[in-house]
Amino acid sequence: MLDTFDPQQKIQLNYGGKIFVTTRGTLDKSPFFARLLSSEGNKDESGAYFVDGSPEYFEPILHFLRRGEIRLDANMNPEAVLDEAKFLDIENMPFAEPKIE
Amino acid sequence: MLDTFDPQQKIQLNYGGKIFVTTRGTLDKSPFFARLLSSEGNKDESGAYFVDGSPEYFEPILHFLRRGEIRLDANMNPEAVLDEAKFLDIENMPFAEPKIE
Amino acid sequence: MLDTFDPQQKIQLNYGGKIFVTTRGTLDKSPFFARLLSSEGNKDESGAYFVDGSPEYFEPILHFLRRGEIRLDANMNPEAVLDEAKFLDIENMPFAEPKIE
Amino acid sequence: MLDTFDPQQKIQLNYGGKIFVTTRGTLDKSPFFARLLSSEGNKDESGAYFVDGSPEYFEPILHFLRRGEIRLDANMNPEAVLDEAKFLDIENMPFAEPKIE
Amino acid sequence: MLDTFDPQQKIQLNYGGKIFVTTRGTLDKSPFFARLLSSEGNKDESGAYFVDGSPEYFEPILHFLRRGEIRLDANMNPEAVLDEAKFLDIENMPFAEPKIE
Repeated sequence: MLDTFDPQQKIQLNYGGKIFVTTRGTLDKSPFFARLLSSEGNKDESGAYFVDGSPEYFEPILHFLRRGEIRLDANMNPEAVLDEAKFLDIENMPFAEPKIE
Repeated sequence: MLDTFDPQQKIQLNYGGKIFVTTRGTLDKSPFFARLLSSEGNKDESGAYFVDGSPEYFEPILHFLRRGEIRLDANMNPEAVLDEAKFLDIENMPFAEPKIE
Repeated sequence: MLDTFDPQQKIQLNYGGKIFVTTRGTLDKSPFFARLLSSEGNKDESGAYFVDGSPEYFEPILHFLRRGEIRLDANMNPEAVLDEAKFLDIENMPFAEPKIE
Repeated sequence: MLDTFDPQQKIQLNYGGKIFVTTRGTLDKSPFFARLLSSEGNKDESGAYFVDGSPEYFEPILHFLRRGEIRLDANMNPEAVLDEAKFLDIENMPFAEPKIE
Repeated sequence: MLDTFDPQQKIQLNYGGKIFVTTRGTLDKSPFFARLLSSEGNKDESGAYFVDGSPEYFEPILHFLRRGEIRLDANMNPEAVLDEAKFLDIENMPFAEPKIE
């Protein structure tokens, strides 16, 4: 029973150079992030876990992990978000019919 | 009578990694934020109160708390702002008819 | 004759958490900002004058103070800029006919 | 023969609060910037040359100085970029027919 | 066998003033970046490799190097991305038919 498994623990992500702050409970819904958080070797020198990806396209994925819904701004390329979701092994994103008109 | 109840007191929020600065008087309109500000345990290591959410979708909510009006840019997904408003227990946002054309 | 009245003096604004740098001459066109700059008590701990507002909607107002023209990007909500202009007591913004198509 | 005239020298600009990094060779194409760079008195306390303008509208001008082409995103107000070009005494920007549809 | 050739090595790029973090393996797909990374003289004082270009238009190119696909947001000027791709000697970007509708 280590306090590192506290779902409210704040986690810093360095996603392609942009820092996001979220919680362990939010990220543990994804096997990719559960693996990322399992090794200190995945941290950068500031202590943030590093992913080599585009922060802009990660934002709707992180919203999905937090709130359970996929929401895309009208301007955003949905295929780029899908690229990123595949890279992160997030299979259950309801992307068949992107809500962009 | 503590000066921490000064409505002009500047408050730093760490909303998903982005820092917002506002006042206690602005945030005290919302029960969610009144609770957040009631405990030092909700602060991150820099002294900002932390919320696990998307900063982009919090911006119109903070504008609403400051100015009393909901304003969405044409590009922004209104359902994402609504997700965030529900998470923050802000019930009275006039969202029935989003002003997006 | 204090050098604090040099119109070229650089002024830092902390507008809702975002730092803008402009000059005293630019801000002195607005009575709101002339008042703000008249008291050191309006500074944050870093020495920037603080305003509790949305930086995104302040940007076109600062452009107006600098260049004398209101310019809105196509995506931006013109009513939000108007909320901010009213808060800042900027009355003469030519907003009757926003140039958005 | 001072190395300060090396066209590859990195130059920091503080454009309204946002830091841009470019080279002396890029900026020397513009008489405004050649003048700005001629005096250390135009630097802010961090060593960046200061201009009182909107960073968003400077971005396409800096792209023009770097690559020789004016490119505007669909959302951007072309008149605001023109305001900024006039302020910077950049006369030869091919703005008669903005490429926005 | 130097560990500087580890494809997982994190690399910081200072692209016109914005910091991107990626890996050596991502950048080595491009001869321009392979050359850039071959000399410490291309680093800025913080240790990031410097390129004199617009970060906004580099973002889709870095997504391409990471995920193998060109994705443009609806708002973005595709010719500006092409300017940047030419500057970076990235010839194989499938730009004949930009996916913007």
